[in-house]
Amino acid sequence: MYDTSHHAQILTNARLATLSGDHGYGLIDGVLVIAGGAIEYVGPRTGLPEKYRNSPETDLGGRLVTPGLIDCHTHLVYSGSRANEFEMRLTGKTYAEISKAGGGIVSTVSATRDASDETLLAETHGRLGRLLAEGVSTVEIKSGYGLDMETELRMLRTARKLSEQRPVRIKTSFLGAHAIPAGMNADTYIDDICIPALRAAHAEGLVDAVDGFCENIGFTPDQIRRVFDCAKSLGLPVKLHAEQLSDQGGAKLAADYDALSADHLEYISDQAIAAMASSGVVAGILPGAFYFLGETQKPPIEKFRAAGINMAIATDSNPGSSPMTSILLAMNMAATLFGMTPEEALRGVTINAAKALGLTDCGRLAAGLRADVAIWDVTHPAELTYRMGDAPLYQRIFEGSIC
Amino acid sequence: MYDTSHHAQILTNARLATLSGDHGYGLIDGVLVIAGGAIEYVGPRTGLPEKYRNSPETDLGGRLVTPGLIDCHTHLVYSGSRANEFEMRLTGKTYAEISKAGGGIVSTVSATRDASDETLLAETHGRLGRLLAEGVSTVEIKSGYGLDMETELRMLRTARKLSEQRPVRIKTSFLGAHAIPAGMNADTYIDDICIPALRAAHAEGLVDAVDGFCENIGFTPDQIRRVFDCAKSLGLPVKLHAEQLSDQGGAKLAADYDALSADHLEYISDQAIAAMASSGVVAGILPGAFYFLGETQKPPIEKFRAAGINMAIATDSNPGSSPMTSILLAMNMAATLFGMTPEEALRGVTINAAKALGLTDCGRLAAGLRADVAIWDVTHPAELTYRMGDAPLYQRIFEGSIC
Repeated sequence: MYDTSHHAQILTNARLATLSGDHGYGLIDGVLVIAGGAIEYVGPRTGLPEKYRNSPETDLGGRLVTPGLIDCHTHLVYSGSRANEFEMRLTGKTYAEISKAGGGIVSTVSATRDASDETLLAETHGRLGRLLAEGVSTVEIKSGYGLDMETELRMLRTARKLSEQRPVRIKTSFLGAHAIPAGMNADTYIDDICIPALRAAHAEGLVDAVDGFCENIGFTPDQIRRVFDCAKSLGLPVKLHAEQLSDQGGAKLAADYDALSADHLEYISDQAIAAMASSGVVAGILPGAFYFLGETQKPPIEKFRAAGINMAIATDSNPGSSPMTSILLAMNMAATLFGMTPEEALRGVTINAAKALGLTDCGRLAAGLRADVAIWDVTHPAELTYRMGDAPLYQRIFEGSIC
Repeated sequence: MYDTSHHAQILTNARLATLSGDHGYGLIDGVLVIAGGAIEYVGPRTGLPEKYRNSPETDLGGRLVTPGLIDCHTHLVYSGSRANEFEMRLTGKTYAEISKAGGGIVSTVSATRDASDETLLAETHGRLGRLLAEGVSTVEIKSGYGLDMETELRMLRTARKLSEQRPVRIKTSFLGAHAIPAGMNADTYIDDICIPALRAAHAEGLVDAVDGFCENIGFTPDQIRRVFDCAKSLGLPVKLHAEQLSDQGGAKLAADYDALSADHLEYISDQAIAAMASSGVVAGILPGAFYFLGETQKPPIEKFRAAGINMAIATDSNPGSSPMTSILLAMNMAATLFGMTPEEALRGVTINAAKALGLTDCGRLAAGLRADVAIWDVTHPAELTYRMGDAPLYQRIFEGSIC
C-alpha cells in the first residue's frame, strides 16, 4: 500500500504510546521508523533491524509520541453561527422565542443552503485547522444541514475537498436523516428526499458511511431502518445517533445492522448494551453536547466497560449542541464529567476511534500502519487528558511527512 | 503616563466592544485611535477629531475589538505536574492512596521548592504563552507553593520576570496563607513564616496584593485576619479565597477589610453577599475548579446579580484543581455551568477583572486608558463565550504595539 522504497527516517529517544493490546497505553521507550508514509518499526532501540543502521535519526528528547488523533464524529461542514441563540438562551429566552427568532437547527440549514461553495469551504477550514493543531490526522464529517438533495451533496463534496487541500484524512457520513425539514412529513422526507439523496451521493463516490438521528425530535427506528436498508443495499456501513435524550431503541437497531458505532447513548438500556457488545458496535462518547446542553444523565461508562464495549470519544463539533473544536477538551470532559480514565480517553481518540470508522490501518503505532503520528511536548500520556485549554503539540506527521 | 508624542494610528471599520456603562457590551461600529501606548479616541468615524486626518489607518474589516483580556486569579508559577494524581483519582484510588503516593498540594510545593529559577521560569512561560495567545494583556499571579520564606519570594520574583520578558502586565499576590506546610502548626506557620515572608516580599517590592485561603482545609478567619492586618499596615490591598468548599465566613471577612475581591464563593451566605455588595468587593467566579473537582454547589450568580455585585471570571490556573490555561474556556464554563450571560462573561474578563485587581487604566476601550487591545476574527462578542476550544484571536496589541 505504501511506497517503501523511500528512505527511512528514525525518531529516537521517544516515549511511544503504541496502544497495542486491549488495554493501557502500550508505552515503550524506544524508536519509531517511518518510510514511504508507513511505520516500519516500533520498539526498543536494541531491537532496531540492521538495515536501518545508516538511516537519518531525529532525537525527540524523550517526548511522547502517539498515533495521530482521530475525531470520529463531527458535523464540521456548515455555515453560520448559533452564538446569538446561545446568548438568547442565557438571557432567559424561551425555546419558542428562540425558534421564532429563527434559531435552532433551521438556522444552520438555511445558512448552509445559502452559503456559496467557497464560503462553506472557508468556514470549515477554520474549524479543521483547530483540530489539526491538536494532532488530529483523521476526521469524520457528516452531511445533514442540507436536508435537500443539492445541499447534502454539496456538504459531502466540501468534506472531500478538505482532504485534497490539507494534510488530513476525511471520512464522510451521509446524515440526511438528521432533522425533518420545516413543513414536511418525516416519512415523505425519508422516502422522497433522504434516500434518493443517499443514492445520488453514493453514485458520486461521496459516502463512506450512513448515519441517522434516532430520537423523539428526530426519526423513529422504523424510518431509520429504511435508510439503513438502503445503505446495506449499497454496501455501505452504518452508524447512529442513539439514546441521546431518550430511549428510542436506536442502539439495539444499530446492533441489528452491525453498525460501526452508536453515539451519545446517555439513555441506553441494559438490553441494548448487551446487543452492542455482542455485535461489536463501538460506543461513541460525546461529552461536548452533554456539557453544552447542561444535561444530567450520563452515559453508563461502567456498564460499557463491564460489557467490554470499545469506547470512542469525539468532539461532535456542531453549531447547536457542541460548538467545540478541541479533541483534547473532549478527552478532558470524558474524564472529568463521565469518569473515563486517561487511558480510555487516549484509546477513545486513537484505536477505538479508528474502529468507529471501520479503519484498521491507523490508531496504533505498529509496523505496517500509516505513519500518522503526533509528537507532544509532554512525557506522560495522561497530560493530554489532564490539561484544560492547552494543546502541547510538538509536531504532527501525516503520511510520513511533518506538517 | 504615556508618551503621546508618538504618531497616532487609527484602526478603522471596527466593531468596538467598549464595555462602557454598567451593563452590556457597549458596542460601537467605528474607529479606535492609539498613540504612545494609550487609547486617544474611541467612537464613530464621524466624530474622529480633525487632528487625526493624516494619521495612518488600518482597516479591520468589521472585526470585533475588545479590551485586552485580564486573568485576575491564577497560580501560574509552579513546577511539576499533577497529571499522575488526576489519573490515580480516575482509576479509583482513594485520597489516602494518592496522598501516600506523594500527591496533593504537597507534591507541587516540593517540586516548586526543588526547581531552579530557570526551570520555574521556563515552565511558567509555557502556560503564560497560552494565555497571551487568547488575547490576555494582564495576568494576576500568586505565590503560595513555597510556604517558606525563600520559595515564596522566588515565586514572586519569577512572576515579576515574566513581565520583563514578555509583552504582558503581571500583578502579584502574596499567598503565603495558601496551605499549612507538612508537620507544622497553622498558627505557628502564619506568625513565624507567612507574615515575616510577606514583610520581606513587600520590602523587595514584590507584592501588589495579599491573598489567603480561608477554608476548613486551609486557614481560619482569625488566622487570615492576622495576615490581613499585616497587609493593611503595609498599605497593601487584600483579596481572599472564600467559601469554596464550605461557609467559613471568609467573604464577610473580605468585606470587613474592603478586599478587592473574594473568589470562588460557592457556599457564600446571603448575609455575606450583602456585606460584599455594601463594601464593593468583586466576586471572583472560578468555574474551572468547580468543573475539574466535580463539585455540584454553584456560586449564587442570580443573587450576585440582584445585589449589584461585580463579577469577574478567571482561569484559577493551577495544577491541583484547575489545570486550565484558557480564559475563553473559563468564560464558556461560567456561562454553560453557572448561567452567566456572554455579556457578563466578557465584562468578567475585562472591566470587572480590572476592578478585581484595583486597576482603573484598563478593562474598557476609552480615551486615556492603556492601549491593551484584542482584535478577533469574529464580529459578535458572544462568539468568544460560545465557542469551546477555539481562540479566534486576530491580533493582540499591548501598550500600543502589535505583539
